[in-house]
Amino acid sequence: IVYGTKGQHEMKDHQRDGRRHQNEGIRHTKLRALTMVNENQHTCSASSSSKSDGGSSSGSESSKDSSRCSTPVLDAERHERLREKMRRRQDSGDRWFSLEFFPPRTANAAVNLISRFDRMAAGGPLFIDVTWHPAGDPGSDKETSSMIIANTAVNYCGLETILHMTCCNQTKDDITGHLQKAKRLGLKNIMALRGDPVGEEWEEEVHGFNHAVDLVKHIRSEFDDYFDICVAGYPKGHPEAESYEADLKHLKEKVLAGADFIITQLFFRPETFLKFMKDCQAIGITCPIIPGIFPIQGYHSLRQLVKLSKLEVPQEIKDVIEPIKDNDAAIRNYGVELAVSMCRELLDSGLVHGLHFYTLNREVATTEVLKRLGIWNEDPRRPLPWAVSAHPKRRVEDVRPIFWASRPKSYIYRTQEWDDFPNGRWGNSSSPAFGELKDYYLFYLKSKSPREELLKMWGEELTGEESVFEVFTCYITGEPNKNGHRVTCMPWNDDPLATETSLLKEQLEKVNRRGILTINSQPNINGKPSTDPIFGWGPSGGYVFQKAYLEFFTSSEIVTALLKVLKKYELRVNYHIVNVKGQNITNAPDLQPNAVTWGIFPGREIIQPTVVDPVSFLSWKDEAFALWIEQWAKLYEEESPSRMIIQYIHDNYYLVNLVDNDFPLENCLWQVVDDTFELLNSPPQQ
Amino acid sequence: IVYGTKGQHEMKDHQRDGRRHQNEGIRHTKLRALTMVNENQHTCSASSSSKSDGGSSSGSESSKDSSRCSTPVLDAERHERLREKMRRRQDSGDRWFSLEFFPPRTANAAVNLISRFDRMAAGGPLFIDVTWHPAGDPGSDKETSSMIIANTAVNYCGLETILHMTCCNQTKDDITGHLQKAKRLGLKNIMALRGDPVGEEWEEEVHGFNHAVDLVKHIRSEFDDYFDICVAGYPKGHPEAESYEADLKHLKEKVLAGADFIITQLFFRPETFLKFMKDCQAIGITCPIIPGIFPIQGYHSLRQLVKLSKLEVPQEIKDVIEPIKDNDAAIRNYGVELAVSMCRELLDSGLVHGLHFYTLNREVATTEVLKRLGIWNEDPRRPLPWAVSAHPKRRVEDVRPIFWASRPKSYIYRTQEWDDFPNGRWGNSSSPAFGELKDYYLFYLKSKSPREELLKMWGEELTGEESVFEVFTCYITGEPNKNGHRVTCMPWNDDPLATETSLLKEQLEKVNRRGILTINSQPNINGKPSTDPIFGWGPSGGYVFQKAYLEFFTSSEIVTALLKVLKKYELRVNYHIVNVKGQNITNAPDLQPNAVTWGIFPGREIIQPTVVDPVSFLSWKDEAFALWIEQWAKLYEEESPSRMIIQYIHDNYYLVNLVDNDFPLENCLWQVVDDTFELLNSPPQQ
Repeated sequence: IVYGTKGQHEMKDHQRDGRRHQNEGIRHTKLRALTMVNENQHTCSASSSSKSDGGSSSGSESSKDSSRCSTPVLDAERHERLREKMRRRQDSGDRWFSLEFFPPRTANAAVNLISRFDRMAAGGPLFIDVTWHPAGDPGSDKETSSMIIANTAVNYCGLETILHMTCCNQTKDDITGHLQKAKRLGLKNIMALRGDPVGEEWEEEVHGFNHAVDLVKHIRSEFDDYFDICVAGYPKGHPEAESYEADLKHLKEKVLAGADFIITQLFFRPETFLKFMKDCQAIGITCPIIPGIFPIQGYHSLRQLVKLSKLEVPQEIKDVIEPIKDNDAAIRNYGVELAVSMCRELLDSGLVHGLHFYTLNREVATTEVLKRLGIWNEDPRRPLPWAVSAHPKRRVEDVRPIFWASRPKSYIYRTQEWDDFPNGRWGNSSSPAFGELKDYYLFYLKSKSPREELLKMWGEELTGEESVFEVFTCYITGEPNKNGHRVTCMPWNDDPLATETSLLKEQLEKVNRRGILTINSQPNINGKPSTDPIFGWGPSGGYVFQKAYLEFFTSSEIVTALLKVLKKYELRVNYHIVNVKGQNITNAPDLQPNAVTWGIFPGREIIQPTVVDPVSFLSWKDEAFALWIEQWAKLYEEESPSRMIIQYIHDNYYLVNLVDNDFPLENCLWQVVDDTFELLNSPPQQ
Repeated sequence: IVYGTKGQHEMKDHQRDGRRHQNEGIRHTKLRALTMVNENQHTCSASSSSKSDGGSSSGSESSKDSSRCSTPVLDAERHERLREKMRRRQDSGDRWFSLEFFPPRTANAAVNLISRFDRMAAGGPLFIDVTWHPAGDPGSDKETSSMIIANTAVNYCGLETILHMTCCNQTKDDITGHLQKAKRLGLKNIMALRGDPVGEEWEEEVHGFNHAVDLVKHIRSEFDDYFDICVAGYPKGHPEAESYEADLKHLKEKVLAGADFIITQLFFRPETFLKFMKDCQAIGITCPIIPGIFPIQGYHSLRQLVKLSKLEVPQEIKDVIEPIKDNDAAIRNYGVELAVSMCRELLDSGLVHGLHFYTLNREVATTEVLKRLGIWNEDPRRPLPWAVSAHPKRRVEDVRPIFWASRPKSYIYRTQEWDDFPNGRWGNSSSPAFGELKDYYLFYLKSKSPREELLKMWGEELTGEESVFEVFTCYITGEPNKNGHRVTCMPWNDDPLATETSLLKEQLEKVNRRGILTINSQPNINGKPSTDPIFGWGPSGGYVFQKAYLEFFTSSEIVTALLKVLKKYELRVNYHIVNVKGQNITNAPDLQPNAVTWGIFPGREIIQPTVVDPVSFLSWKDEAFALWIEQWAKLYEEESPSRMIIQYIHDNYYLVNLVDNDFPLENCLWQVVDDTFELLNSPPQQ
């Protein structure tokens, strides 16, 4: 909402559909009616248990959840709409923040923005929003479009996301098309804006969308209560409004038309917002109003912004900035300082629970402000051991195969066509078919590192299988390779070693050096508190467990010895061994999944979020082998020795996974590997 | 098949439908095709994974399971049909036995027979069979009918069951009606017999059922492959057959018409059976042939049998029996001896894998024979911590609320209308509505003890609430009450205390004495081997866990103190407290079930067979309170003081359940109760 909103006027009086608010919060009507419960130990009668509590359910998506809860609500917020989350935070007094981004111009910038999303997600924003960039074909499938960036944020980064949408100069059909597409992609929140008319003068269309309120009405009439709708508020009044009061009236009309909350245009003084908020309340606007915070990050961006938004920078700010206008660092420090002090004042007023940040797609200043305010949640509790997707279809998802642990975006991509997601038990998934992964260059699947960097890490020139072992070993140890470069990613892991895996570093280094090329592993855990900083996940008061897991590529020679060794471990160790052609060796007695991570929580059913599933393993195998070629071999010239070495490994190695079922005992998988090497080194017996 | 089979002749030659056998074993076609697996580590290609292995699926019930396994096969046999189980045992070399019963004449005898089923089920029969008693209205809903006895065996005792059915003198519609009813009730196996013609002479009906083979054909034509069909074999030839050879030919015709296996008429010498078996094989009968074993149990029953079956008792047996014909014990001992030696010879031949016993509804002789043969499986591994029902609809069931732990038959009765059973997670049940339990005298729900015995145990005359406490305490301790009678059952527990509960005896005694009237409890278990003799269940190599659970009735005074105490335990202890009117007090944050028993197994998903489900608790509460009145108060005259005491408790007490979520720590529930009593005894503070 920073750029390009010029005017909003002449709205007709109308009544909004009252049905919607009745429906709020009654998603679990039957549940609540039956609950007869509260934490303060009140009693109430069960005899009314079959009656609902008055609201009638509308046709919204959420109504199908209205009977019996079919999934454990490990993370209460996962099942809530944005407006409910906001209310919950307000009720509990938890302060929150949100982040605004605009779509990037190039595909490379998109890749960077996505990894920024991932990093900033770690701070725990309540939502992010993506602006609508009319000049950038915002509803298209381009990887830089507003729609696709928002899609990526929701589905691949697991962020609650608001997609901006402007309505002027667009047909109803265009708008409806965009909204349908947004819904299909799993977007649940729209910021309804007018947008900029083209040209200086502007004729209103009689039946068209002339104002944001028209878009709000259209969304409510076409999509009922599906979307949460946000609208813009102008603490200083909209520059094109007849008056501050007239603008407040327009705002109220937008709320009456169905908006759920308001985000304001930026402002420079806390009292501006606080007055605006009081004025809104005075005319009966009761929905949440979220202040838009703009940490000044540079002289030019401020000037640009001021020009577009027609806001005036207060003299006291100009006085500080002008003298240091060429010192970016100084301006940013000042901006951070200013934002922190303004936010403190807003929060201290008791009227503000959440802060919305105009990031300008930058990370440092906003993160700094949030950290200093103490609302950057450095280590948020994980609801599950993997990052959950925010797509509404995936709300119940709580089981995944372990194979994609380091490639969650690929997993989401390959399961995007599923109608059901497994919940409680992998075997319950009715959609076991994985989509093919053919395009390894999809921007959310692409490596963050450019080709030159990958070559430095993985070797400009390979001299044999051993030089490949060396790359794996360097990735594990974190030590620089012989050319002095650290290996910070691998085709199967775009990030450095996880803390959990680091604990296995010593053993992993040993085995990688000898050609057991590990790509995924976890230690066994026999009941750690769910709040454990490394292994914990889920609500507090619980216990988490793991079976030891080890997955690696290795030669057929090693596989032959390994199989001999595995015999003596019988059912203690389950294994699946497969080569690129699909030759498959296993001791699993049937096709059942093996749970390798699970948690026990107070008042909950058992959660088992990761499994080794024999069927999925065959889909993963295709991907895992293809990554040798797609990400590594293709760095080299065709027919080059380096490429042929990778090709040889791809063609001849096996992908192996091992599970030690006896989780209370010491992990035996290292012993299995040691025994294997010992067998290989022992003189052949007759 | 002991009684009433007189003749079987003149069958036409015909071809049986070959489709059926093709279909066998391909229920998991897709699974197997994808598996590419075997335990001996062979390899095979995955490229053929999408092809089935040749068989085309028929329209049988099992076809809906043909895609993905949706339940953990903890007990492989649970998903198999009887003929598959038989084949599995034969392949693995495991010897088995089965038991034949006839329907009782009176309702009381039916109650006794059902508890005999439960006791004999402990020995692990592969199946039982129930004879068809044409004079006893065998297809009716009477509690003594063949149909209902078989229904009870399958559904309430969890026994694989064969229902006999005779066809002569019945219309096709009658037969079809019986078969449809059997299918509806969950019966999956039919023993197809001709039965006795009425009167001496007998006219064949042209289009009627004149022979067992007609019934076999009818079942196959009307029900395709739904039923497994058993037919009778006559080692000495049927008494009405033209010849032994002609009778063998008739037998082969029955097999060709679709019979899956053969059970023989009794015989007295092992060589009789072995010759018969060889003769069958010689003419191409390849299905299993199971010898019918008749342990002689008394002089009169033997004579009666011989008369009906037209068999001749060998002279060497007569020589022993005649001199001791008035000594029942001696005859039974001899009969056991004889049966054991015959069975040994049969088993030693290597041709016999299973033995079928004609029990005459008696327990001792058959059990003795089985124990001496070493095939009575004294302590069979429990596939789940509760007894599973053998109804095909319940094949996937692996979660139940803990409340019915001691009343499994009531649970099955109240959930018999469910279409789906929860599997993996209680929350997945789509049929959460429990049927009402109104008729507490249904014969499978009735107490095994008559009124007089109950009065002796629970008090001819109650003098106050304390005398009720005393009854509960005596049940726990096993000590005789003040009138010298042991309390071996309670309205909520038809059996003496379980071993698991006995471990809590000391604490339970203490609290029952003071008015915490316990009806269900389990200790916490932090990972015992799944083979643990007391707590173990499921396949070996796993670990089982439990949260401590305590359920009891108690006064409102104690509840008030308890609630104060519970406050300081916060979420560590979940509680649900409800009175007969439905006033409900709980600290559960929502309606989610709490898993209180779970198991981790090699290569399996997590199994959580018992949960505390807040919604089910309200259905259980009605039953639990009603049992005070139905089973206890009604023993006394209306308006009598004893009855009024029970009525008072029913009207004023609360039903409480407590779960200690912190299963790795020492069970805190006893501390909770101690604190409660301490609070009650402490002087009121101001």
